[in-house]
Amino acid sequence: MSTPVDLLISNAGYLVTVNGKNEIFENYSIAITNGRISHIGKMAELSGLNATKTFDATNHLICPGLVNSHTHLAMSLLRGWAEGVNLDGFLKRVWAAEGAIMDEATSQLGTELGALEALLGGTTTTMDMYLNPVATHKGAVRVGLRHICGPIFFDFPGLDGLEWQTRIERAYKWPEALASIGGPFIPIYLMPHSTYTDSAEHLTQVAGIAKELNASIHLHVSETLGENEDVQKRYGKTPTQVCRDTHILDRHTIYGHGVHLSDSDRQIVAQSGGAVAHCPGSNLKLGSGIAQFKKMIATGIKVGLGTDGCSSSNDLDMFAVMRMAAHLVAYSGTPADVDLTQIVRAATADGATAVGLGDRIGSIEVGKEADLIAIDLAQPHLTPVHNVLALLVFAAGRADVTDVWVAGDHVISNRASTKIDAQDLITRVNSRIKILDEIK
Amino acid sequence: MSTPVDLLISNAGYLVTVNGKNEIFENYSIAITNGRISHIGKMAELSGLNATKTFDATNHLICPGLVNSHTHLAMSLLRGWAEGVNLDGFLKRVWAAEGAIMDEATSQLGTELGALEALLGGTTTTMDMYLNPVATHKGAVRVGLRHICGPIFFDFPGLDGLEWQTRIERAYKWPEALASIGGPFIPIYLMPHSTYTDSAEHLTQVAGIAKELNASIHLHVSETLGENEDVQKRYGKTPTQVCRDTHILDRHTIYGHGVHLSDSDRQIVAQSGGAVAHCPGSNLKLGSGIAQFKKMIATGIKVGLGTDGCSSSNDLDMFAVMRMAAHLVAYSGTPADVDLTQIVRAATADGATAVGLGDRIGSIEVGKEADLIAIDLAQPHLTPVHNVLALLVFAAGRADVTDVWVAGDHVISNRASTKIDAQDLITRVNSRIKILDEIK
Repeated sequence: MSTPVDLLISNAGYLVTVNGKNEIFENYSIAITNGRISHIGKMAELSGLNATKTFDATNHLICPGLVNSHTHLAMSLLRGWAEGVNLDGFLKRVWAAEGAIMDEATSQLGTELGALEALLGGTTTTMDMYLNPVATHKGAVRVGLRHICGPIFFDFPGLDGLEWQTRIERAYKWPEALASIGGPFIPIYLMPHSTYTDSAEHLTQVAGIAKELNASIHLHVSETLGENEDVQKRYGKTPTQVCRDTHILDRHTIYGHGVHLSDSDRQIVAQSGGAVAHCPGSNLKLGSGIAQFKKMIATGIKVGLGTDGCSSSNDLDMFAVMRMAAHLVAYSGTPADVDLTQIVRAATADGATAVGLGDRIGSIEVGKEADLIAIDLAQPHLTPVHNVLALLVFAAGRADVTDVWVAGDHVISNRASTKIDAQDLITRVNSRIKILDEIK
Repeated sequence: MSTPVDLLISNAGYLVTVNGKNEIFENYSIAITNGRISHIGKMAELSGLNATKTFDATNHLICPGLVNSHTHLAMSLLRGWAEGVNLDGFLKRVWAAEGAIMDEATSQLGTELGALEALLGGTTTTMDMYLNPVATHKGAVRVGLRHICGPIFFDFPGLDGLEWQTRIERAYKWPEALASIGGPFIPIYLMPHSTYTDSAEHLTQVAGIAKELNASIHLHVSETLGENEDVQKRYGKTPTQVCRDTHILDRHTIYGHGVHLSDSDRQIVAQSGGAVAHCPGSNLKLGSGIAQFKKMIATGIKVGLGTDGCSSSNDLDMFAVMRMAAHLVAYSGTPADVDLTQIVRAATADGATAVGLGDRIGSIEVGKEADLIAIDLAQPHLTPVHNVLALLVFAAGRADVTDVWVAGDHVISNRASTKIDAQDLITRVNSRIKILDEIK
């Protein structure tokens, strides 16, 4: 008697599980049932399965979808808009452009563009901080991405023009809004922008709401030395001490960046169970510095990897981020410090834990949701295979991803979206951004 | 009356010329005649041409083929073979593997693999230092690459088992050997490995032969601090002072790496008319350091970009190298120091000058040989285009290259080689490298 399954991914050349033992299997198959991984084994062991669909993964590497733990997807519309500037100059230039175009429809449009780029490049989950989260979430869900977002908080009305009280009201309505949109499961997050754009009083208030809603928190922390100095001047504290004292750190919090954390800051974050999204490309490009990836992990902080937004990164290429993260470990110490397992885990299983999804995604194990990517190995730059993880980190790239599944949904098939017409989307984007010519 | 041309590349979305004025044109066309660029202009201006073939470049960016100014193509067979080691550990591990497999046929095989990867990724010229240059050149020419190589010199017999006298004899025969193989034009180079593997006496001898043959020289210089210390101990001089005093620097010389050049070293190299191949990825990965890209250029050194070999880089991705080079400029100074024109020039026109081909390739100008690449812009990660050079450096990637011409020869068409069966090559490589299992 045969067991019905929805999808059989058969005979993967390499199956990089990122499970507890970081096992890598050769010629293994995976079955998916109701969006979850139901079976893993050699084909002979899975012969009793009756699959509705089969994907032949011969000559492919199958691994968990990548988790981009800090980005701003809608800013894909501003790719290349702010060059040769540090974070301060960057924010000035970008906020001017955002003020000119980022209504709800445009936020959704930019997020569709970013979500499609992310998925095509093997990223299945993003932690996306942006204005108009209802609109951005609709866009991302339409394209098939697992898209964590949430209400954003600034002291000032900001580009969305919302008063503080309106932000609070929207936060309370967020779980309901999210449920009405649907899409792959995501946890509830609230997103105060930073300790330099939200007062301690406001941060305390957000932390309180997060507790009421059983929500987690994502914010920018210690991205630059200038930020640390400003916050120190205002409060006599580091940004992390502000986060601790306002109870922001009580909420399974994930920092964007964390470039300039002191030893003591790292202890505080680790003890709170907090996480950091390490964004080496953006940090180098804006001259912000190099976050201490190994030290953060050694202290017990959960560390994910992120691209940041396309106006600073300038794309959503998580393969480039893995490579850069590894290079910076070697540069900051010695090449022997580079633990490829640690890099791959940060982009998958540990990244998933960092964004509150460690029990659902990030590894290939029975019971996990099927967020998976297939990488075509039959290419000159991926030949030969002496070391599977070195291949993944140092030689593979976004364009090697042929197929992507999110919760079992085949969202990218043979390098094309099954959800949205890419050329039509590109046309809509190019039409919308014409308005920026006026402020160039 | 119409003028016959071989190829018309019509209506390029963007034409990045990298000419003396670094002009970027929109909706421009190029005609190729006898392997050279014969016309550049708007389609209306070129209406009198009668083209044998046409390539529709609508929605494409056309730019000069990239110049990889330091690599070891055959080492593609050792991709991922030596991980987590610095240069010393790397050389030990790699030399053991090379000793086991690198006969002439295998050197050719590895070079075919590297050449195909290079071309598919938009690199049209490589400066390739490796054993068995006759064999490697045959392989590269077969695949269609503009492949600069040359006799290699070590004091010790080395992996190819050649005595010094045999190396000298082969050097004298090199111009003739090269002529008999054919392929796109390349200058004559001799390649002593370094100042730590070739004695001053031997270097002086090589410089003398280079003068007789009117040849240029390529060697590794100041890749690591350890190398500088060893050479200092042996001679009381920096590697660059050794190069100067042995007349190595009299030969339009290009250094591989040049990570640890002093101010005085840089002056010496610049005054000699010398060049440096900057290899930021390899230098980070092996923990060698960060070469001073801006300072070298400011001193008057010709600076190209390179990947180094696939056992340290671990691929031949010149787009990743451009991105990394730009990031390291921002990191070493401020983001305002990043001059995208300088980065793109280093990968094209300035790289061409660094490898002795500045009068023939590296820019899109009438009279230059047609080494060109086409990049497909109609993709989410390349949308929108606010800044063409930022798109090229920070968002484009090797897989966006659809078509490649070398001296007008259409070597890559729609992402596939017109010269060689890639899958057959991959099979031959995988079969050959099985022998390495024994020494793993």
